[in-house]
Amino acid sequence: MTTEHFELHPQLARDCHVLGSVDEGLVLLHKNASLPWFLLVPRTDAGQLHELGAEERIRIQARWNDLAAWVSERFACDRVNVAAIGNVVPQLHLHTVGRRAGDPVWPGVPWGQSLSDRSWSDEDLAGLRRELAGRLEMV
Amino acid sequence: MTTEHFELHPQLARDCHVLGSVDEGLVLLHKNASLPWFLLVPRTDAGQLHELGAEERIRIQARWNDLAAWVSERFACDRVNVAAIGNVVPQLHLHTVGRRAGDPVWPGVPWGQSLSDRSWSDEDLAGLRRELAGRLEMV
Repeated sequence: MTTEHFELHPQLARDCHVLGSVDEGLVLLHKNASLPWFLLVPRTDAGQLHELGAEERIRIQARWNDLAAWVSERFACDRVNVAAIGNVVPQLHLHTVGRRAGDPVWPGVPWGQSLSDRSWSDEDLAGLRRELAGRLEMV
Repeated sequence: MTTEHFELHPQLARDCHVLGSVDEGLVLLHKNASLPWFLLVPRTDAGQLHELGAEERIRIQARWNDLAAWVSERFACDRVNVAAIGNVVPQLHLHTVGRRAGDPVWPGVPWGQSLSDRSWSDEDLAGLRRELAGRLEMV
């Protein structure tokens, strides 16, 4: 998969911390720490999953699945909300949001909600990077 | 895949038309016709994609992908919003919502929105069933 022309969409770069890189793309964390909200941004020009070739799609979805399984376990979630929406940001990005009954927007969806202003600490970020490096072979 | 104990969750049965059955599960259409909002309900006891075995997950995601590609083309969509959420209905159900710039909730997500009351006609439903039978080998 070519990475030469891969550039993160400015809005994703603004809204998220880049945690690291896996073979399939970048792993991001939403800057708002009200929810454990991760994203996988595949290295591809395709804007939607159904525009990918089958092999690439299966590989990307497998990694997305690994991320969801980790989020579920790591944050003791009741559900993980997974979605590819892209109505605002056209670059393909795969939401992976850990949810717990009673979290700030439960049982609503996380998108389009107003979340109170909470940040991840540098220590949190370093810890998450370390854990994901082990779990997803993220560098 | 066993289908013996498969039963559609009452809320999905209430909110949706059953269009038909594919090998992987049931294909539904949200009764509100404001958006072309389809769902694939896999025949499984797993509540989340990451709880499926890899083979079953890949097969279900391939069919979900086929549905998304068809929705995109059939309704001339700008985007297809695909998601597995399940905060309210625990039965695994895969949203596949055709979106167009300027549709009633664009660019917001379709979940948790109030949509004006529009219904699919019997003719619409028969036509969609016919088209999906050809496209997804739905019966």
